[in-house]
Amino acid sequence: MSQPDIGSWACPVPLRDHPNVVMGHGGGGRLSAELVAHLFLPAFAGTPLAGTLAELGDSAVLDLGPELGPGARLAFSTDSYVVRPRFFPGGNIGDLAVNGTVNDLAVAGAVPLALSVGAILEEGMLLDELGVIAETMGAAARAAAVSIVTGDTKVVDSGHGDGLYLNTAGIGLVSAGVSLGPAQVRPGDAVLLSGPIGMHGIAVLSVRDGLEFGADLVTDSAPVTPLTQGLLAAGLGVAMMRDPTRGGVAATLNEMAVASGTGIEIVERDVPVPDTVRAACGFLGLDPLYIANEGKVVVIVRGPDAEAALDTMRRTAVGRGATRIGTVTAEHPGVVVARTGIGGTRVVDLPLAEQLPRIC
Amino acid sequence: MSQPDIGSWACPVPLRDHPNVVMGHGGGGRLSAELVAHLFLPAFAGTPLAGTLAELGDSAVLDLGPELGPGARLAFSTDSYVVRPRFFPGGNIGDLAVNGTVNDLAVAGAVPLALSVGAILEEGMLLDELGVIAETMGAAARAAAVSIVTGDTKVVDSGHGDGLYLNTAGIGLVSAGVSLGPAQVRPGDAVLLSGPIGMHGIAVLSVRDGLEFGADLVTDSAPVTPLTQGLLAAGLGVAMMRDPTRGGVAATLNEMAVASGTGIEIVERDVPVPDTVRAACGFLGLDPLYIANEGKVVVIVRGPDAEAALDTMRRTAVGRGATRIGTVTAEHPGVVVARTGIGGTRVVDLPLAEQLPRIC
Repeated sequence: MSQPDIGSWACPVPLRDHPNVVMGHGGGGRLSAELVAHLFLPAFAGTPLAGTLAELGDSAVLDLGPELGPGARLAFSTDSYVVRPRFFPGGNIGDLAVNGTVNDLAVAGAVPLALSVGAILEEGMLLDELGVIAETMGAAARAAAVSIVTGDTKVVDSGHGDGLYLNTAGIGLVSAGVSLGPAQVRPGDAVLLSGPIGMHGIAVLSVRDGLEFGADLVTDSAPVTPLTQGLLAAGLGVAMMRDPTRGGVAATLNEMAVASGTGIEIVERDVPVPDTVRAACGFLGLDPLYIANEGKVVVIVRGPDAEAALDTMRRTAVGRGATRIGTVTAEHPGVVVARTGIGGTRVVDLPLAEQLPRIC
Repeated sequence: MSQPDIGSWACPVPLRDHPNVVMGHGGGGRLSAELVAHLFLPAFAGTPLAGTLAELGDSAVLDLGPELGPGARLAFSTDSYVVRPRFFPGGNIGDLAVNGTVNDLAVAGAVPLALSVGAILEEGMLLDELGVIAETMGAAARAAAVSIVTGDTKVVDSGHGDGLYLNTAGIGLVSAGVSLGPAQVRPGDAVLLSGPIGMHGIAVLSVRDGLEFGADLVTDSAPVTPLTQGLLAAGLGVAMMRDPTRGGVAATLNEMAVASGTGIEIVERDVPVPDTVRAACGFLGLDPLYIANEGKVVVIVRGPDAEAALDTMRRTAVGRGATRIGTVTAEHPGVVVARTGIGGTRVVDLPLAEQLPRIC
């Protein structure tokens, strides 16, 4: 059987010292990390709050000092969205752009408050389509209880852009007493996942040119604030949360391990993968651990609190399928390993680039 | 003498009921305003802070309630940058992206604190060039005393995008007691301008394909915070400030007149236009009032405070050429008129679209 036509989703170029931008620089893997560490961070150093950027979460959490109420901090995050196609089963670029930034704030422990929207339109785009996308954004904002408060529109010439690129930035409040981050992670902590993985990435892939394979999947794009705030309100020992978008659960676990200086061991068969995702991945030669999600959360919580945290997560719509997938360990710091079905272990590496570019 | 080749900067299409996006939707004129009013605002309505968006300044100013210190509010703004070419006399897309958002916050009365950066890179862009632009952004941020604290990078396929699009969003603090906006504007107020106009737009135009005309202009891109905070610190009766970017001083004055329900009368010969800008505009058939700036401010201040305000502005580097250009009037509400050199008056209309697309 011949390979599907994969021309449109480009093999990530593995030339680490390439003088040009390659697709992998946007893939959320090693090349993305290197671009940030070696090009952007040195350039942006020396500004008053620059230390914040070096923490490299998906949100900055800013202590604004006495101007903000006692102990409260501001979370601030941004993401651009260049997904192709713009419409896919279960959603479009609009709700993806709202939920993506809402979730980056939510996993920082913030209650998302307000979003900005920057739209870069290609001359010739149908206004009717833009209208549908804007309405989807409004509906997603209302569902996430967040407000779109400021925006900007630019138009680029026909033949440039891809119809529409969106950027959303967001701010949220982190309450006094919330202290999350890699420094909180300890050996013995449990690694929890809010539900089945791979649905967003495969849903987008299912409508790419030449790749229709009739999967009945829809994107899992949804706001995770009820889950994250539920965990914080329950007073459980949450150490760190991340949403496994670009690069999938594998990239997120690697970031957590590297940033915290601990090892992470997962049990491969405990990672919930829907049958259709597994079938599509098998057909295409992809690993579900590396497929992007939007609306899932990886939570690291003190070991003794794991069951109570799962109960709390399962009481929310986005966490109904929550399960424990692994444990933080003092061994192999910075490295993620998976115990396989046949009893062995394998290293779950940070991808060089994403398997499927432009799905967020 | 033949016309210069203007193919690359496209005449704004005047079809108001066109079903497709046209360049003018991004030009900051009437078509941009209609897109926001008729497509985005209705779609984004009904979210908790939605009223904020309807005020339509370049920044939202949010009262976060008791979490923020007594009376203080948060300003939040965003802009995308698609300027071509990316390098032009005196700057590049990087410092433009920093100063543009810093200035949107500054004219809202805020002290800018932190920026996010969203970069959309085209596959194949030279990393060396990206490095120069990132360094320019860092330098501009340090000059503006603002921090770049969070970011995101996406890569789109070669042939899409234009090498690089940037989005910056920013937050700043508005002190208790600062109350600016169209509701503060009254007949009798003075209209001040921080310096000579048109330099950014003509500097970009001077390096467009086929349009080199040897002007010795550089962009006026610069942070205006020292000027805006100087005015507020001096306790002068400042009613409203805006930076005249896309659509130029003409678009800004029209926005101020419409939003405040007052008329504005300017004296045309009092508007400072550098000789090279005037010459370039004469050659190209453009009106300097409609050329974009970056680093200029229009200030509406109580009439009796006008001279003190000009003194304060002139003590800052960006306001050295500050001058009074007009007066707010109760006549012709929502309309801007200019007294011409020969004693007549003409209406200074909101442009349908920008004369020069993609200069920010």
